[in-house]
Amino acid sequence: MTSHGLGTTTVCQIGIIVRDIERSAERYSRVFGLPMPKIVITDTYDKAHTTYLGQPSEARAKLAFFEMGQVSVELIEPIGAPSTWARFLEEKGEGVHHIAFHVKGTDQVVASLAAEGIALEQQGHYTGGMYTYVDSAPQLGVILELLEDLA
Amino acid sequence: MTSHGLGTTTVCQIGIIVRDIERSAERYSRVFGLPMPKIVITDTYDKAHTTYLGQPSEARAKLAFFEMGQVSVELIEPIGAPSTWARFLEEKGEGVHHIAFHVKGTDQVVASLAAEGIALEQQGHYTGGMYTYVDSAPQLGVILELLEDLA
Repeated sequence: MTSHGLGTTTVCQIGIIVRDIERSAERYSRVFGLPMPKIVITDTYDKAHTTYLGQPSEARAKLAFFEMGQVSVELIEPIGAPSTWARFLEEKGEGVHHIAFHVKGTDQVVASLAAEGIALEQQGHYTGGMYTYVDSAPQLGVILELLEDLA
Repeated sequence: MTSHGLGTTTVCQIGIIVRDIERSAERYSRVFGLPMPKIVITDTYDKAHTTYLGQPSEARAKLAFFEMGQVSVELIEPIGAPSTWARFLEEKGEGVHHIAFHVKGTDQVVASLAAEGIALEQQGHYTGGMYTYVDSAPQLGVILELLEDLA
């Protein structure tokens, strides 16, 4: 174990909330000269087991990914609520929602961040792993996402 | 020349607007286990030649940088106005202001982005180079910064 919170300092993803993912993805594609990505939808509750502030949520999101070197830019269009994605769109409008890091031992990382006053906001599963958003915006100006591969 | 706008797809920096850079930098330092960075202030007008929407501006900013792999996270506390930094803080509060890319031929890149309806917002110089912010938030959900090394 490292002594600090995340055990890593390598940003792997920048997540951007948008209102219309098809329109936004086309614009990214044109500006950066990248192929139009496939737009996917997060899993339903029976697979994703999404929790928001500790309660189950049916909320989902449309996602599109652009590879931009070490980091991927993830576009996110919220579907339904409550979710960290829907809250951000309502409070801030379109914009950068999170920066993401690959971690090991999510529970320990979350406990370490809680000691800094940074609260767990949303968790869920996807094929091969799980994600956790902590609401570090009051402390760091941006939400952090923890990504952990699961066997 | 590449046919697309920026000529690169490698994000090199994430810029985050904060209200109190000393406080925010200490929190980043603790959460990521990184040394406290030196806080610097952008040059005065006689060196930086800052322009905002085409007009000279005396606005400056305090900056702090954290290396996080391929990308650096830049904390920015606006000093004075008008600037893209001060506008963001007023309109959105703390949050991710821009993602940055190293480019060659800023004028050509700016012209290419203008063709997508993306407008030049702010330019200035620093030791060894120049920066350009384009207000791509309406199109991409985030401002882009173009960084160019100058001989």
